[in-house]
Amino acid sequence: MAKQERAVRTRHSLISSAAEAFERHGYVQAKLSDISASAGVSPGALHFHFENKAAVAATVEASAGVSLRREAWLAQRPEMNALQRLTNTMHALAGRLRRDVVARAGFKLSYEAPHGSGPTLHQEWQICVRQLLAEASDEALLLDGTDCSVVADGIVAATTGFELLGRSDPAWFSAATLTAHWRLTLRSIARPEILRALEPDGSPTRAEGRRPPIR
Amino acid sequence: MAKQERAVRTRHSLISSAAEAFERHGYVQAKLSDISASAGVSPGALHFHFENKAAVAATVEASAGVSLRREAWLAQRPEMNALQRLTNTMHALAGRLRRDVVARAGFKLSYEAPHGSGPTLHQEWQICVRQLLAEASDEALLLDGTDCSVVADGIVAATTGFELLGRSDPAWFSAATLTAHWRLTLRSIARPEILRALEPDGSPTRAEGRRPPIR
Repeated sequence: MAKQERAVRTRHSLISSAAEAFERHGYVQAKLSDISASAGVSPGALHFHFENKAAVAATVEASAGVSLRREAWLAQRPEMNALQRLTNTMHALAGRLRRDVVARAGFKLSYEAPHGSGPTLHQEWQICVRQLLAEASDEALLLDGTDCSVVADGIVAATTGFELLGRSDPAWFSAATLTAHWRLTLRSIARPEILRALEPDGSPTRAEGRRPPIR
Repeated sequence: MAKQERAVRTRHSLISSAAEAFERHGYVQAKLSDISASAGVSPGALHFHFENKAAVAATVEASAGVSLRREAWLAQRPEMNALQRLTNTMHALAGRLRRDVVARAGFKLSYEAPHGSGPTLHQEWQICVRQLLAEASDEALLLDGTDCSVVADGIVAATTGFELLGRSDPAWFSAATLTAHWRLTLRSIARPEILRALEPDGSPTRAEGRRPPIR
Protein backbone atom coordinates (compact mmCIF):
# COMPACT_ATOMS: atom_id res chain seq x y z
CA MET A 1 0.00 0.00 0.00
CA ALA A 2 1.37 3.41 -0.89
CA LYS A 3 2.37 5.60 2.05
CA GLN A 4 -0.26 8.21 1.26
CA GLU A 5 -3.04 5.67 0.96
CA ARG A 6 -2.05 4.21 4.34
CA ALA A 7 -2.19 7.67 5.89
CA VAL A 8 -5.70 8.22 4.50
CA ARG A 9 -6.85 4.87 5.91
CA THR A 10 -5.34 5.57 9.32
CA ARG A 11 -7.00 8.96 9.45
CA HIS A 12 -10.30 7.37 8.50
CA SER A 13 -10.11 4.75 11.27
CA LEU A 14 -9.11 7.39 13.79
CA ILE A 15 -12.22 9.42 12.88
CA SER A 16 -14.46 6.34 13.31
CA SER A 17 -12.87 5.37 16.62
CA ALA A 18 -13.16 8.93 17.88
CA ALA A 19 -16.84 9.09 16.89
CA GLU A 20 -17.50 5.86 18.78
CA ALA A 21 -15.62 7.12 21.83
CA PHE A 22 -17.51 10.45 21.78
CA GLU A 23 -20.81 8.61 21.48
CA ARG A 24 -20.03 6.17 24.27
CA HIS A 25 -18.29 8.45 26.79
CA GLY A 26 -19.09 12.00 25.66
CA TYR A 27 -16.54 14.48 24.40
CA VAL A 28 -15.15 15.37 27.84
CA GLN A 29 -14.63 11.79 29.02
CA ALA A 30 -13.32 10.33 25.74
CA LYS A 31 -9.59 9.53 25.95
CA LEU A 32 -7.14 9.99 23.06
CA SER A 33 -5.27 6.87 24.18
CA ASP A 34 -8.44 4.77 23.81
CA ILE A 35 -9.15 6.32 20.41
CA SER A 36 -5.72 5.44 19.02
CA ALA A 37 -5.83 1.95 20.59
CA SER A 38 -9.21 1.07 19.10
CA ALA A 39 -8.07 2.38 15.70
CA GLY A 40 -5.09 0.02 16.01
CA VAL A 41 -2.47 2.77 15.83
CA SER A 42 0.05 4.25 18.24
CA PRO A 43 -0.62 7.48 20.17
CA GLY A 44 2.17 8.99 18.08
CA ALA A 45 0.27 8.19 14.88
CA LEU A 46 -2.79 9.93 16.28
CA HIS A 47 -0.73 13.01 17.09
CA PHE A 48 0.71 12.97 13.57
CA HIS A 49 -2.86 13.48 12.28
CA PHE A 50 -4.43 15.55 15.06
CA GLU A 51 -2.96 18.13 17.39
CA ASN A 52 -5.37 17.46 20.27
CA LYS A 53 -8.84 16.22 21.18
CA ALA A 54 -10.49 19.44 19.95
CA ALA A 55 -8.92 18.88 16.53
CA VAL A 56 -10.26 15.31 16.47
CA ALA A 57 -13.74 16.56 17.39
CA ALA A 58 -13.60 19.31 14.75
CA THR A 59 -12.76 16.66 12.15
CA VAL A 60 -15.58 14.34 13.27
CA GLU A 61 -17.98 17.28 13.03
CA ALA A 62 -16.64 18.28 9.61
CA SER A 63 -16.92 14.68 8.32
CA ALA A 64 -20.49 14.48 9.60
CA GLY A 65 -21.24 17.71 7.77
CA VAL A 66 -19.84 16.36 4.50
CA SER A 67 -21.83 13.10 4.65
CA LEU A 68 -25.06 14.75 5.80
CA ARG A 69 -24.83 17.42 3.09
CA ARG A 70 -24.21 14.72 0.48
CA GLU A 71 -27.17 12.73 1.81
CA ALA A 72 -29.42 15.79 1.56
CA TRP A 73 -28.26 16.40 -1.99
CA LEU A 74 -28.83 12.77 -3.07
CA ALA A 75 -32.33 12.75 -1.59
CA GLN A 76 -33.56 15.57 -3.81
CA ARG A 77 -34.48 15.32 -7.46
CA PRO A 78 -35.21 18.32 -9.60
CA GLU A 79 -38.52 16.90 -10.81
CA MET A 80 -39.92 16.68 -7.26
CA ASN A 81 -41.85 19.52 -5.72
CA ALA A 82 -40.27 21.35 -2.76
CA LEU A 83 -42.39 19.58 -0.10
CA GLN A 84 -41.42 16.15 -1.40
CA ARG A 85 -37.79 17.26 -1.49
CA LEU A 86 -38.07 18.40 2.16
CA THR A 87 -39.72 15.08 3.11
CA ASN A 88 -37.04 13.04 1.38
CA THR A 89 -34.25 15.13 2.84
CA MET A 90 -35.55 14.68 6.36
CA HIS A 91 -35.76 10.89 5.96
CA ALA A 92 -32.37 10.67 4.28
CA LEU A 93 -30.68 12.65 7.06
CA ALA A 94 -32.40 10.56 9.74
CA GLY A 95 -31.36 7.35 7.97
CA ARG A 96 -27.76 8.52 7.83
CA LEU A 97 -27.81 9.49 11.52
CA ARG A 98 -29.25 6.07 12.43
CA ARG A 99 -26.62 4.03 10.62
CA ASP A 100 -23.48 6.19 10.69
CA VAL A 101 -21.75 6.78 14.02
CA VAL A 102 -19.56 9.58 12.61
CA ALA A 103 -22.63 11.51 11.42
CA ARG A 104 -24.34 10.92 14.77
CA ALA A 105 -21.34 11.92 16.88
CA GLY A 106 -20.67 14.98 14.73
CA PHE A 107 -24.29 16.07 14.90
CA LYS A 108 -24.26 15.77 18.70
CA LEU A 109 -20.93 17.60 18.99
CA SER A 110 -22.33 20.39 16.86
CA TYR A 111 -24.91 21.28 19.49
CA GLU A 112 -23.07 20.27 22.64
CA ALA A 113 -19.60 21.55 21.90
CA PRO A 114 -19.39 23.12 18.42
CA HIS A 115 -15.82 23.30 17.13
CA GLY A 116 -16.22 24.96 13.75
CA SER A 117 -16.52 28.69 13.15
CA GLY A 118 -19.40 28.51 10.63
CA PRO A 119 -23.03 27.56 11.27
CA THR A 120 -23.58 24.39 13.33
CA LEU A 121 -25.15 21.35 11.68
CA HIS A 122 -28.42 22.26 13.41
CA GLN A 123 -28.26 25.71 11.91
CA GLU A 124 -27.58 24.23 8.47
CA TRP A 125 -30.64 22.02 8.86
CA GLN A 126 -32.66 25.07 9.83
CA ILE A 127 -31.42 26.96 6.77
CA CYS A 128 -32.27 23.96 4.56
CA VAL A 129 -35.81 23.67 5.98
CA ARG A 130 -36.43 27.41 5.57
CA GLN A 131 -35.12 27.37 2.01
CA LEU A 132 -37.30 24.42 0.94
CA LEU A 133 -40.38 25.92 2.61
CA ALA A 134 -39.74 29.22 0.81
CA GLU A 135 -39.58 27.25 -2.45
CA ALA A 136 -42.80 25.43 -1.51
CA SER A 137 -44.42 28.81 -1.00
CA ASP A 138 -43.15 30.04 -4.39
CA GLU A 139 -44.51 26.84 -5.97
CA ALA A 140 -47.93 27.58 -4.35
CA LEU A 141 -47.93 24.28 -2.48
CA LEU A 142 -48.82 25.71 0.94
CA LEU A 143 -52.18 26.42 2.55
CA ASP A 144 -53.08 30.09 2.69
CA GLY A 145 -51.81 31.78 5.84
CA THR A 146 -48.96 29.31 6.44
CA ASP A 147 -46.19 31.11 8.31
CA CYS A 148 -43.04 29.48 6.88
CA SER A 149 -40.82 30.69 9.66
CA VAL A 150 -43.04 29.20 12.40
CA VAL A 151 -43.40 25.95 10.45
CA ALA A 152 -39.63 25.74 9.93
CA ASP A 153 -38.94 26.28 13.65
CA GLY A 154 -41.43 23.53 14.51
CA ILE A 155 -39.85 21.09 12.05
CA VAL A 156 -36.33 21.80 13.32
CA ALA A 157 -37.41 21.50 16.97
CA ALA A 158 -39.36 18.27 16.40
CA THR A 159 -36.60 16.56 14.41
CA THR A 160 -34.06 17.67 17.04
CA GLY A 161 -36.27 16.23 19.79
CA PHE A 162 -36.89 12.95 17.93
CA GLU A 163 -33.14 12.53 17.44
CA LEU A 164 -32.38 13.29 21.08
CA LEU A 165 -35.11 11.00 22.44
CA GLY A 166 -33.99 8.30 19.98
CA ARG A 167 -30.61 8.18 21.69
CA SER A 168 -32.13 6.41 24.69
CA ASP A 169 -35.02 4.73 22.84
CA PRO A 170 -34.49 4.12 19.08
CA ALA A 171 -38.27 3.88 18.44
CA TRP A 172 -38.42 7.69 18.77
CA PHE A 173 -36.17 8.13 15.74
CA SER A 174 -37.43 5.24 13.61
CA ALA A 175 -38.62 5.73 10.03
CA ALA A 176 -42.15 4.76 11.16
CA THR A 177 -42.30 7.43 13.89
CA LEU A 178 -40.92 10.11 11.58
CA THR A 179 -43.34 9.14 8.78
CA ALA A 180 -46.37 9.35 11.09
CA HIS A 181 -45.24 12.72 12.37
CA TRP A 182 -44.49 13.96 8.88
CA ARG A 183 -47.91 12.92 7.56
CA LEU A 184 -49.46 15.14 10.23
CA THR A 185 -47.10 18.02 9.47
CA LEU A 186 -47.77 17.87 5.73
CA ARG A 187 -51.52 17.78 6.38
CA SER A 188 -51.25 21.02 8.35
CA ILE A 189 -49.31 22.93 5.67
CA ALA A 190 -49.96 21.47 2.18
CA ARG A 191 -52.91 22.30 -0.06
CA PRO A 192 -55.27 19.29 -0.28
CA GLU A 193 -54.64 18.73 -4.01
CA ILE A 194 -50.87 18.71 -3.35
CA LEU A 195 -51.17 16.53 -0.27
CA ARG A 196 -52.66 13.62 -2.22
CA ALA A 197 -49.49 13.25 -4.31
CA LEU A 198 -47.00 13.56 -1.45
CA GLU A 199 -45.27 10.51 0.04
CA PRO A 200 -44.75 11.18 3.76
CA ASP A 201 -42.34 8.26 4.02
CA GLY A 202 -40.18 9.70 1.24
CA SER A 203 -40.35 6.45 -0.74
CA PRO A 204 -39.50 5.18 -3.22
CA THR A 205 -37.12 7.91 -4.32
CA ARG A 206 -35.65 8.24 -0.86
CA ALA A 207 -34.07 4.79 -0.91
CA GLU A 208 -32.46 5.27 -4.29
CA GLY A 209 -31.67 8.95 -4.39
CA ARG A 210 -29.83 9.71 -7.57
CA ARG A 211 -28.02 6.40 -7.64
CA PRO A 212 -28.60 4.23 -10.71
CA PRO A 213 -31.27 1.55 -10.12
CA ILE A 214 -30.05 -1.98 -9.34
CA ARG A 215 -30.50 -4.38 -12.28
CA MET B 1 -32.09 29.17 64.01
CA ALA B 2 -33.07 25.67 65.12
CA LYS B 3 -30.66 22.91 64.13
CA GLN B 4 -33.21 21.19 61.89
CA GLU B 5 -34.10 24.40 60.07
CA ARG B 6 -30.40 25.07 59.43
CA ALA B 7 -30.00 21.57 57.99
CA VAL B 8 -32.94 22.15 55.63
CA ARG B 9 -31.43 25.44 54.45
CA THR B 10 -28.01 23.89 53.90
CA ARG B 11 -29.52 21.06 51.92
CA HIS B 12 -31.46 23.58 49.86
CA SER B 13 -28.35 25.65 49.00
CA LEU B 14 -26.41 22.50 48.16
CA ILE B 15 -29.12 21.50 45.68
CA SER B 16 -29.02 24.95 44.03
CA SER B 17 -25.23 24.99 43.84
CA ALA B 18 -25.21 21.49 42.42
CA ALA B 19 -27.79 22.42 39.78
CA GLU B 20 -25.67 25.41 38.75
CA ALA B 21 -22.54 23.28 38.59
CA PHE B 22 -24.28 20.58 36.52
CA GLU B 23 -25.62 23.24 34.16
CA ARG B 24 -22.25 24.95 33.75
CA HIS B 25 -19.91 21.96 33.61
CA GLY B 26 -22.13 18.95 32.97
CA TYR B 27 -22.64 16.09 35.40
CA VAL B 28 -19.31 14.41 34.70
CA GLN B 29 -17.16 17.52 35.08
CA ALA B 30 -18.96 19.06 38.08
CA LYS B 31 -16.85 18.84 41.27
CA LEU B 32 -18.29 18.18 44.73
CA SER B 33 -15.68 20.52 46.23
CA ASP B 34 -16.93 23.39 44.04
CA ILE B 35 -20.54 22.58 44.92
CA SER B 36 -19.92 22.73 48.67
CA ALA B 37 -17.75 25.87 48.32
CA SER B 38 -20.35 27.79 46.34
CA ALA B 39 -23.04 26.74 48.82
CA GLY B 40 -20.80 28.18 51.55
CA VAL B 41 -20.44 24.92 53.46
CA SER B 42 -17.60 22.49 54.15
CA PRO B 43 -17.09 19.30 52.11
CA GLY B 44 -17.97 17.43 55.33
CA ALA B 45 -21.35 19.15 55.47
CA LEU B 46 -22.03 18.09 51.87
CA HIS B 47 -21.17 14.49 52.75
CA PHE B 48 -23.47 14.66 55.76
CA HIS B 49 -26.35 15.28 53.31
CA PHE B 50 -25.24 13.30 50.25
CA GLU B 51 -23.23 10.12 49.93
CA ASN B 52 -21.74 10.98 46.53
CA LYS B 53 -22.27 12.93 43.30
CA ALA B 54 -24.88 10.45 42.04
CA ALA B 55 -26.92 11.07 45.19
CA VAL B 56 -26.68 14.85 44.63
CA ALA B 57 -27.83 14.42 41.02
CA ALA B 58 -30.69 12.14 42.04
CA THR B 59 -31.85 14.82 44.50
CA VAL B 60 -31.61 17.60 41.88
CA GLU B 61 -33.67 15.45 39.52
CA ALA B 62 -36.21 14.64 42.25
CA SER B 63 -36.51 18.35 43.21
CA ALA B 64 -37.03 19.27 39.56
CA GLY B 65 -39.75 16.63 39.37
CA VAL B 66 -41.54 18.04 42.43
CA SER B 67 -41.51 21.63 41.15
CA LEU B 68 -42.46 20.70 37.58
CA ARG B 69 -45.34 18.51 38.75
CA ARG B 70 -46.57 21.29 41.02
CA GLU B 71 -46.31 23.76 38.12
CA ALA B 72 -48.34 21.45 35.88
CA TRP B 73 -50.97 21.09 38.57
CA LEU B 74 -51.21 24.86 39.19
CA ALA B 75 -51.59 25.57 35.47
CA GLN B 76 -54.76 23.51 35.13
CA ARG B 77 -58.23 24.50 36.26
CA PRO B 78 -61.16 22.12 36.26
CA GLU B 79 -63.35 24.53 34.27
CA MET B 80 -60.91 24.55 31.33
CA ASN B 81 -61.24 22.11 28.48
CA ALA B 82 -58.46 19.55 28.04
CA LEU B 83 -56.73 21.38 25.16
CA GLN B 84 -56.51 24.59 27.15
CA ARG B 85 -55.17 22.63 30.11
CA LEU B 86 -52.52 21.09 27.86
CA THR B 87 -51.62 24.53 26.46
CA ASN B 88 -51.33 26.05 29.91
CA THR B 89 -49.33 23.13 31.25
CA MET B 90 -46.82 23.37 28.41
CA HIS B 91 -46.32 27.11 28.99
CA ALA B 92 -46.12 26.71 32.76
CA LEU B 93 -43.46 23.97 32.49
CA ALA B 94 -41.46 26.03 29.99
CA GLY B 95 -41.67 29.09 32.25
CA ARG B 96 -40.41 27.08 35.20
CA LEU B 97 -37.55 25.62 33.13
CA ARG B 98 -36.58 29.13 31.97
CA ARG B 99 -36.38 30.67 35.44
CA ASP B 100 -35.40 27.78 37.73
CA VAL B 101 -31.93 26.32 37.41
CA VAL B 102 -32.81 23.28 39.56
CA ALA B 103 -35.73 22.39 37.28
CA ARG B 104 -33.53 22.91 34.21
CA ALA B 105 -30.59 20.87 35.52
CA GLY B 106 -32.89 18.09 36.74
CA PHE B 107 -34.71 17.96 33.41
CA LYS B 108 -31.40 17.68 31.55
CA LEU B 109 -30.06 15.03 33.95
CA SER B 110 -33.23 13.03 33.43
CA TYR B 111 -32.42 12.45 29.78
CA GLU B 112 -28.62 12.49 29.90
CA ALA B 113 -27.98 10.48 33.04
CA PRO B 114 -31.23 9.45 34.74
CA HIS B 115 -30.73 8.56 38.40
CA GLY B 116 -34.20 7.55 39.54
CA SER B 117 -35.78 4.15 39.01
CA GLY B 118 -39.22 5.44 37.90
CA PRO B 119 -40.12 7.17 34.64
CA THR B 120 -37.83 10.03 33.59
CA LEU B 121 -39.18 13.58 33.55
CA HIS B 122 -39.46 13.30 29.76
CA GLN B 123 -41.54 10.17 30.14
CA GLU B 124 -43.76 11.92 32.70
CA TRP B 125 -44.29 14.76 30.23
CA GLN B 126 -45.19 12.22 27.57
CA ILE B 127 -47.69 10.55 29.90
CA CYS B 128 -49.20 13.94 30.74
CA VAL B 129 -49.56 14.91 27.05
CA ARG B 130 -51.15 11.56 26.18
CA GLN B 131 -53.55 11.78 29.11
CA LEU B 132 -54.71 15.31 28.23
CA LEU B 133 -55.12 14.42 24.56
CA ALA B 134 -57.19 11.37 25.53
CA GLU B 135 -59.38 13.69 27.60
CA ALA B 136 -59.61 16.11 24.67
CA SER B 137 -60.78 13.21 22.54
CA ASP B 138 -63.39 12.22 25.16
CA GLU B 139 -64.54 15.85 25.27
CA ALA B 140 -64.96 15.76 21.44
CA LEU B 141 -62.51 18.65 20.96
CA LEU B 142 -60.39 17.01 18.26
CA LEU B 143 -60.76 16.94 14.49
CA ASP B 144 -61.99 13.63 13.12
CA GLY B 145 -59.17 11.24 12.35
CA THR B 146 -56.70 12.79 14.84
CA ASP B 147 -54.27 10.09 15.96
CA CYS B 148 -53.62 11.07 19.60
CA SER B 149 -50.52 8.96 19.91
CA VAL B 150 -48.86 10.52 16.86
CA VAL B 151 -49.85 14.01 18.00
CA ALA B 152 -48.50 13.33 21.51
CA ASP B 153 -45.16 12.10 20.13
CA GLY B 154 -44.88 15.24 17.99
CA ILE B 155 -45.60 17.52 20.93
CA VAL B 156 -43.08 15.76 23.17
CA ALA B 157 -40.41 15.79 20.44
CA ALA B 158 -40.98 19.46 19.56
CA THR B 159 -40.94 20.69 23.16
CA THR B 160 -37.82 18.60 23.81
CA GLY B 161 -36.16 20.13 20.77
CA PHE B 162 -37.19 23.70 21.66
CA GLU B 163 -35.75 23.23 25.15
CA LEU B 164 -32.50 21.76 23.83
CA LEU B 165 -32.04 24.44 21.16
CA GLY B 166 -32.92 27.11 23.76
CA ARG B 167 -29.88 26.13 25.77
CA SER B 168 -27.58 27.77 23.22
CA ASP B 169 -30.08 30.38 21.96
CA PRO B 170 -32.87 31.37 24.40
CA ALA B 171 -35.10 32.64 21.57
CA TRP B 172 -35.85 29.00 20.71
CA PHE B 173 -37.49 28.44 24.08
CA SER B 174 -39.15 31.84 24.52
CA ALA B 175 -42.87 32.20 25.27
CA ALA B 176 -43.31 33.86 21.85
CA THR B 177 -41.74 30.95 19.93
CA LEU B 178 -43.74 28.38 21.87
CA THR B 179 -46.98 30.32 21.40
CA ALA B 180 -46.48 30.55 17.63
CA HIS B 181 -45.72 26.84 17.43
CA TRP B 182 -48.65 25.98 19.65
CA ARG B 183 -51.10 28.04 17.59
CA LEU B 184 -50.12 25.92 14.57
CA THR B 185 -50.39 22.67 16.55
CA LEU B 186 -53.84 23.53 17.88
CA ARG B 187 -55.01 24.48 14.39
CA SER B 188 -54.03 21.04 13.14
CA ILE B 189 -55.90 19.10 15.87
CA ALA B 190 -58.80 21.17 17.30
CA ARG B 191 -62.28 21.45 15.82
CA PRO B 192 -62.78 24.95 14.36
CA GLU B 193 -65.51 25.88 16.87
CA ILE B 194 -63.20 24.84 19.75
CA LEU B 195 -60.18 26.56 18.25
CA ARG B 196 -61.78 30.01 18.43
CA ALA B 197 -62.00 29.87 22.22
CA LEU B 198 -58.47 28.51 22.82
CA GLU B 199 -55.65 30.77 23.99
CA PRO B 200 -52.41 29.46 22.44
CA ASP B 201 -50.34 31.61 24.80
CA GLY B 202 -52.06 30.05 27.81
CA SER B 203 -53.00 33.49 29.18
CA PRO B 204 -54.42 34.85 31.35
CA THR B 205 -54.89 31.81 33.57
CA ARG B 206 -51.36 30.61 32.98
CA ALA B 207 -49.81 33.55 34.84
CA GLU B 208 -52.03 33.17 37.87
CA GLY B 209 -52.70 29.46 38.03
CA ARG B 210 -54.66 28.67 41.14
CA ARG B 211 -52.96 31.34 43.21
CA PRO B 212 -55.27 33.99 44.71
CA PRO B 213 -55.30 37.22 42.66
CA ILE B 214 -53.14 40.12 43.91
CA ARG B 215 -55.21 42.90 45.49
